[in-house]
Amino acid sequence: MTGPIAEEAITALYSSISPSPSTLAIADLGCSTGANALFAVSELIKAVENMRHNNNEPHAYQIFLNDLPGNDFNTVFRTLPKFQKENGRCFFAGVPGSFYDRLFPNKFLHFIHSSYSLQFLSQVPEGIECNKGNISMASTSPPSVIDAYHRQFQNDFLAFLKYRAQELVPGGRMVITFVGRRGKDPWNPEWELLAAAFNEMVSEGLIEEEKVDVFNIPHYKPCPSDVEAEVLKEGSFSINRLEVSGLDWIAIDKEFGQRSNREDEEVGGYGTMRCMRAVAEPMLISHFGEGIMEDLFHRYRLLIIQQIAKEKTELINVTVSLTRRPA
Amino acid sequence: MTGPIAEEAITALYSSISPSPSTLAIADLGCSTGANALFAVSELIKAVENMRHNNNEPHAYQIFLNDLPGNDFNTVFRTLPKFQKENGRCFFAGVPGSFYDRLFPNKFLHFIHSSYSLQFLSQVPEGIECNKGNISMASTSPPSVIDAYHRQFQNDFLAFLKYRAQELVPGGRMVITFVGRRGKDPWNPEWELLAAAFNEMVSEGLIEEEKVDVFNIPHYKPCPSDVEAEVLKEGSFSINRLEVSGLDWIAIDKEFGQRSNREDEEVGGYGTMRCMRAVAEPMLISHFGEGIMEDLFHRYRLLIIQQIAKEKTELINVTVSLTRRPA
Repeated sequence: MTGPIAEEAITALYSSISPSPSTLAIADLGCSTGANALFAVSELIKAVENMRHNNNEPHAYQIFLNDLPGNDFNTVFRTLPKFQKENGRCFFAGVPGSFYDRLFPNKFLHFIHSSYSLQFLSQVPEGIECNKGNISMASTSPPSVIDAYHRQFQNDFLAFLKYRAQELVPGGRMVITFVGRRGKDPWNPEWELLAAAFNEMVSEGLIEEEKVDVFNIPHYKPCPSDVEAEVLKEGSFSINRLEVSGLDWIAIDKEFGQRSNREDEEVGGYGTMRCMRAVAEPMLISHFGEGIMEDLFHRYRLLIIQQIAKEKTELINVTVSLTRRPA
Repeated sequence: MTGPIAEEAITALYSSISPSPSTLAIADLGCSTGANALFAVSELIKAVENMRHNNNEPHAYQIFLNDLPGNDFNTVFRTLPKFQKENGRCFFAGVPGSFYDRLFPNKFLHFIHSSYSLQFLSQVPEGIECNKGNISMASTSPPSVIDAYHRQFQNDFLAFLKYRAQELVPGGRMVITFVGRRGKDPWNPEWELLAAAFNEMVSEGLIEEEKVDVFNIPHYKPCPSDVEAEVLKEGSFSINRLEVSGLDWIAIDKEFGQRSNREDEEVGGYGTMRCMRAVAEPMLISHFGEGIMEDLFHRYRLLIIQQIAKEKTELINVTVSLTRRPA
């Protein structure tokens, strides 16, 4: 879903800048170990190259891959020589830092891309001690917890927009995909099922209850109106598109659940579990230690299988395409 | 030695650009794990900030730390948040790639700094099979080996200059420090003593002679006229300063030889050995394996001690300060 929207945005950007810049500066914010980011970047480059096929001048792309300073940039960098060989004149740089802070000089970037990163907050919201039995904003959370998560998202996303507005050239574009929600309903199936797995282990005496009570994930899935409200409040961007799409957990299972062990594939739940484990495990290990992970994610997978059998459950994507207004 | 020359160059650059750029783009080429590069960068920033003390506008610095894609950038990046806190508005990026290739878009950089990196060649020169008993260009090498090393340096440094000329803005500056030589004399004490340690081990049957015969270090220490000749040939730069300085091995020993084991400090040779080991060990391990390293560097240290007792031996620095001519 993000792909076509991002490609439309970068070609619109490229045709709107006159004279065409000899180098496009593109940032991917929250690149992680890079495989997805590099795929997205190569599609963006293809889109620009396709529209300039009559123009023989060589064109350069400066690609900035950003993530937190603790990210494994070594792994990203070791894959780049191959990518550069295949994609012509691309100059890569890694930018360590939080996207809730300034990352680039004023009016430096032409295009910003970010996929599945901005649902992570800068911190766990304050004042959510009463969120016992949950590990995120959940359907059973007290309203004060829902509010605290929402406010944290508002503050973080507003800061994000403010800094990016400084970094983009006037007319510059930004396409962001969040893991989000369709409406304001706080039902967060993937995190609530993980909390249920924790609660099972608490009731069997395998984890201390208090240890789960004090743990919360810095994660908020915005709905389209959450995103729109902050863009309007910040004021530097116009919204070109704001779209929602859903990906069925059964489809995720098929895409990410391939494994040599046929039994695993047939039982299901493996793909969704594996995606969530990739996202959540580092945070969980630093609080709970490594020892409980196998047991926890085994239980989690069984809960996913029950959930899939009970009702259709989707991963929701919220994608927004923005243009930096002239100052 | 490099410090004052680089600071003079960056202040001259800053006062020559009109109007002053709001962001200075600075690259450190061959940053390794970064500690020395960050020290150099913070001195450059201090120099610019000192000269603009009457100008209250906030100023930004974009710092690009470059090394090969296999470098440990993770370690560099984890030290940056502390540095950024202390040094105001610095935007950092890591740039993986060889400085014997293009790294940045056209006319992108204002200032390039490189310390103790450009004596490494892009590859071991071809046609030096006859360099038996040596591991580098040495006083006992056949003339064809000396020529092959010299030609490799010429080709590499010319390519380096050509690419940097494309990347620097007109009037941009570059300050490079090589480990070098005073004259054309091929005496390479640090590598010749390491070869002697290898030859001892060969004569004792601890390493196969052939394994040493086929091993050569891609390393050439240029003298000032080597550097000057390539700059004149390439033609895009004017030379502001070209200087040579020496650092006595006994002084290196004092600076890098501190260790809790007093006996080691008293015997000497430890600091020079440690510096060379840091530089050479990764290359040696990939050819000879890890097993022989302790023995090799123990022998090497004893040879250093003998050398220091026999005559004054220096590490020579060749520093060149260049300005990109207007095209």
